[in-house]
Amino acid sequence: MILVLDNQATNDEIKNLQQRLKFMGFEAIISNENAQKTISLVKGVDKNTDIKGFINLPLVKEILPLKTKFGLANKDAKAQQTVIRIKDKKIGGGHFTVMAGPCAIESRQQILAIAKAVSSNGASILRGGAFKPRTSPYDFQGLGEVGLHYMREAADRYNLLCISEVMNAKDIDLLEKYVDILQIGARNMQNYNLLKAAGQAKKPVFLKRGLSATYNEFLLAAEYILSCGNPNVILCERGIRTFETHSRNTLDIAAVPILRELTHLPIIVDPSHGTGIRNAVAPMANAAMAVCADGIMVEVHTDPDKSVSDAQQAISPTMFADMMRSLRGIAKAVDMTID
Amino acid sequence: MILVLDNQATNDEIKNLQQRLKFMGFEAIISNENAQKTISLVKGVDKNTDIKGFINLPLVKEILPLKTKFGLANKDAKAQQTVIRIKDKKIGGGHFTVMAGPCAIESRQQILAIAKAVSSNGASILRGGAFKPRTSPYDFQGLGEVGLHYMREAADRYNLLCISEVMNAKDIDLLEKYVDILQIGARNMQNYNLLKAAGQAKKPVFLKRGLSATYNEFLLAAEYILSCGNPNVILCERGIRTFETHSRNTLDIAAVPILRELTHLPIIVDPSHGTGIRNAVAPMANAAMAVCADGIMVEVHTDPDKSVSDAQQAISPTMFADMMRSLRGIAKAVDMTID
Amino acid sequence: MILVLDNQATNDEIKNLQQRLKFMGFEAIISNENAQKTISLVKGVDKNTDIKGFINLPLVKEILPLKTKFGLANKDAKAQQTVIRIKDKKIGGGHFTVMAGPCAIESRQQILAIAKAVSSNGASILRGGAFKPRTSPYDFQGLGEVGLHYMREAADRYNLLCISEVMNAKDIDLLEKYVDILQIGARNMQNYNLLKAAGQAKKPVFLKRGLSATYNEFLLAAEYILSCGNPNVILCERGIRTFETHSRNTLDIAAVPILRELTHLPIIVDPSHGTGIRNAVAPMANAAMAVCADGIMVEVHTDPDKSVSDAQQAISPTMFADMMRSLRGIAKAVDMTID
Amino acid sequence: MILVLDNQATNDEIKNLQQRLKFMGFEAIISNENAQKTISLVKGVDKNTDIKGFINLPLVKEILPLKTKFGLANKDAKAQQTVIRIKDKKIGGGHFTVMAGPCAIESRQQILAIAKAVSSNGASILRGGAFKPRTSPYDFQGLGEVGLHYMREAADRYNLLCISEVMNAKDIDLLEKYVDILQIGARNMQNYNLLKAAGQAKKPVFLKRGLSATYNEFLLAAEYILSCGNPNVILCERGIRTFETHSRNTLDIAAVPILRELTHLPIIVDPSHGTGIRNAVAPMANAAMAVCADGIMVEVHTDPDKSVSDAQQAISPTMFADMMRSLRGIAKAVDMTID
Repeated sequence: MILVLDNQATNDEIKNLQQRLKFMGFEAIISNENAQKTISLVKGVDKNTDIKGFINLPLVKEILPLKTKFGLANKDAKAQQTVIRIKDKKIGGGHFTVMAGPCAIESRQQILAIAKAVSSNGASILRGGAFKPRTSPYDFQGLGEVGLHYMREAADRYNLLCISEVMNAKDIDLLEKYVDILQIGARNMQNYNLLKAAGQAKKPVFLKRGLSATYNEFLLAAEYILSCGNPNVILCERGIRTFETHSRNTLDIAAVPILRELTHLPIIVDPSHGTGIRNAVAPMANAAMAVCADGIMVEVHTDPDKSVSDAQQAISPTMFADMMRSLRGIAKAVDMTID
Repeated sequence: MILVLDNQATNDEIKNLQQRLKFMGFEAIISNENAQKTISLVKGVDKNTDIKGFINLPLVKEILPLKTKFGLANKDAKAQQTVIRIKDKKIGGGHFTVMAGPCAIESRQQILAIAKAVSSNGASILRGGAFKPRTSPYDFQGLGEVGLHYMREAADRYNLLCISEVMNAKDIDLLEKYVDILQIGARNMQNYNLLKAAGQAKKPVFLKRGLSATYNEFLLAAEYILSCGNPNVILCERGIRTFETHSRNTLDIAAVPILRELTHLPIIVDPSHGTGIRNAVAPMANAAMAVCADGIMVEVHTDPDKSVSDAQQAISPTMFADMMRSLRGIAKAVDMTID
Repeated sequence: MILVLDNQATNDEIKNLQQRLKFMGFEAIISNENAQKTISLVKGVDKNTDIKGFINLPLVKEILPLKTKFGLANKDAKAQQTVIRIKDKKIGGGHFTVMAGPCAIESRQQILAIAKAVSSNGASILRGGAFKPRTSPYDFQGLGEVGLHYMREAADRYNLLCISEVMNAKDIDLLEKYVDILQIGARNMQNYNLLKAAGQAKKPVFLKRGLSATYNEFLLAAEYILSCGNPNVILCERGIRTFETHSRNTLDIAAVPILRELTHLPIIVDPSHGTGIRNAVAPMANAAMAVCADGIMVEVHTDPDKSVSDAQQAISPTMFADMMRSLRGIAKAVDMTID
Repeated sequence: MILVLDNQATNDEIKNLQQRLKFMGFEAIISNENAQKTISLVKGVDKNTDIKGFINLPLVKEILPLKTKFGLANKDAKAQQTVIRIKDKKIGGGHFTVMAGPCAIESRQQILAIAKAVSSNGASILRGGAFKPRTSPYDFQGLGEVGLHYMREAADRYNLLCISEVMNAKDIDLLEKYVDILQIGARNMQNYNLLKAAGQAKKPVFLKRGLSATYNEFLLAAEYILSCGNPNVILCERGIRTFETHSRNTLDIAAVPILRELTHLPIIVDPSHGTGIRNAVAPMANAAMAVCADGIMVEVHTDPDKSVSDAQQAISPTMFADMMRSLRGIAKAVDMTID
């Protein structure tokens, strides 16, 4: 619900009204879009709310419905795009973040070698799965906590942040001991208990778009996290399921400019899962840069063909280095920073 | 992995071999398809297994790969279709089970009234959500335990079984106190922690197909539950996501005959979520009967337009009664029992 | 555009107004839905029409937009469902029509043998392709006119009507010499020149839904034919393209009840192309009957595995006979006629 | 079919063999992939061909099946990528071609104004529809020949090539009088009569990917044209149909690197139809450049909101100029030429 205010109202008067609404139990966001002063109630309005009553509040001239259901994720909810700062790194705000690493953490040696390779070529965040969601119960399910331990060591040694997937609300505390960013995978994008638990976590959350999630559903999933109190949500476009079978998924690069018009949250692209084809990873990373995404997540392996999972989409350190060179060139053209 | 056996082997010899394999850590299923004696190792074989070594076991003539990864769900794993017996009711085996009730349990009065209406017209299982997965965090999330309490009372009063959705592994114990069947929703079809927990539950599990899950992924999700020890899994086709926007989903009726060739598990059809269109529910229930599904799950509400959720797809008790009459006619034609 | 009329107007007055509108160049349909007298202008209104001027016509009280763009195909455009009569046969109106035959006409012997087999088991229309749309230019493209000649002979000998696909506007005259119904295939559903030419043909047109056509697009394709003057259009649901790869297409059985609410045209189901799986054909034919479709089109071959095209979905005469027995049982239950 | 040759064979011997095969009725392509000399028979092999007989030909050591059915479109069929030269312009080969203009030619003034605007900013080809495929029979169908006449005048005045859609085989001669490239639209991608007729045309053919066409089907459609003798086919990725409804289509940018591995034909991207969203056009044009597509086709209108069709996706001359500036920057980074 949007309360359209008297444009003569002073900032102090509006802040007083906001205070009063918070006291009444509403999340109230002040906005000034198109030179019209408004307060949006993005949380707390339900079927029992007497909407007409708001017209009696001071300053209120008119009551409008919210344009979207994702009030907190909505672009209008903030004056500028969200920038997430972790240690000396930042995500968003014109900076292109490169997250790289193996699909699964396989051993201490493996993650150390890969961390070295990617950090020396410009990655700032190490990725790697310790708890793996696998379609079959009989496939490798990840090393668990020991894997996280190896990953933290590798990240620290090479001055990287690290990110790993959490599949279960009760594992969040464990993950937070080791990683800088919690990843929620595509299959869990509508696992609402996990989203709510992530909303109470201290670390930023990296939320992957579901296989067949619309933009609206994607942003409502982010809204679950935001509405539970965690403002640091990073969106990840990782390919959607279509009729095409040659590639693993159809990477929806247009999601970047389209989501940009809808939300203030950072948007990362995953060209590895997004295509499932090794030779398409670097071109699609280029495309992500060209549309000014806030970064990419790519799978890198020192021996790609021997990856325990998703071998066909992992790139070698050499391919990674070539890709980074190409990204730096495009970054200049589109006025993004990368290093 | 399939061990092809000497056809001269006696039943006792084969059972001994099965015993030995179980001792070695494998789930071993005896089969006799096309007059060829075999043992399928559906669980326990991984990358570290020395596959060639099996040829040295007694009776083994040849080693073949499994045709599918869902060894336990596979049709070949059992001599006949699974029939699940709960109290005096059964699901599967030529019987058409009708599950009916509101989308969400809204009040004691509501669930009692609906239970009365559906039981008097031939439903045997009462459905109703107490924990609701909602796309938006601001929508009605269900009554929780108090709702389950009302539902149990209503089910008992009208001699119905009852089923409700579990969204969270830690809620399974709570649910099992009240309901006869645990439902896992479409959004959680690949929530592997929930699947594993359901695999350790005592009650049967009703697993809904994910919005964009292939048959193979659907059966592998069932395999997660089966491989954790719960043999009582019921599959539910509830519509898939396609390009069509007029209907809520595209109900894939062909999933019934196709899955029938792949698995021994019972298959239920949900025409309410499958179409999202009130007037299409009864015709699609007819279609489910015509392809010999093991039953349907439908949303019934005494005041459909006032449902707190999914109002446009709920049918009235009168429409339900008409639908049941029509189903009884088709049941006779396809030789199914319904009452 | 809908002209809402004074409810006191007499039938004669309304007919006079209709006459006047036709004279002005509009296709004007009289309706009386929900006890409100109206005239719908389904053709002739364009950007240059001065819509406000109509309010000055006699009887007119109000001007409303058409609910859909397919005015002629719209259910409201006719008092009852369209029934198409060809020789002694009819399509629509509670009768279930069975069209059967090979994918492609391969030889005189083949089409004669199949015609005999299907006619003796209750089919009334013989299908078979003489001009085949093939994804690859190097695949068998059909026998052409000689095939049509064989088909006509076979149809006449066994008292069947016959239907064959036309791929090219300039072939319509040729086709009309041999067949009773012109088929337009899924790939040509939006080949507008072909649709317009079919709209000027004398024979009824059997229009297959495009692979990824919405209901709205499907009905607008039918509208092309209707608006060119041919009132005899039969719709065919033949499966849509989805992410599922196990089956050839996803047969959208719900299209039958949904389209029924939108249009007066007959609706046929093709379970052969709709699934691409031999064992799913008969169950899905049952489903089509259960939702009261106006018939089915199935591929039958005396030696299914040797079909020159689409072998995996053709059924044998024996399977066809079994299917027909089953259909007769369900027909009774849903009050349809079949023989 | 691939004939693997004795690697000792001389070029002359191989050319003799090729000659002999052509005489026998086969299209025979010489290749030397991975240092193995081969001849591929991409046309003329059918069910009646005695494949084993080829082993008796001189030089032939082994016979392999073709990896794909699109032998002429296949990357292996040519030593390098196809470059199409028209007058002083070229398409393909590291050059990025910009095709721009209105969706439909509306008037002489309109097309002249737009031609001026786009030519002064670097477009080399003028687009515009004279025959419009419209979903509804009641929508504007285009100006026809008079529109083509205006377009030719505008193109000539501003030193542009021009392209327009042909919907009907019998219109090809007419189109060829006015335009430099014949466009076949997405809806006609499998209109095989039109493809065959385009294969006999003298002008290059611009083939748009069907709404739900796989890469394989797309290349087989191109193969229809190539196999009829026209070697100048340009592929266009223009968005596919998915479940997402916010955008008109999902633009599959990954199609560029993926098709590049499969074919030697030039690949153009259409970000206007591909997204249907004005603000997404320029970013997606950038993405097309970043993956080294051979160009783009965009809809430009001097008064975008007043376009008679597809108004929401047309960009203004100012937006076009901004987009071109950005493209020039990225072109440098990826080593493409654009002017």
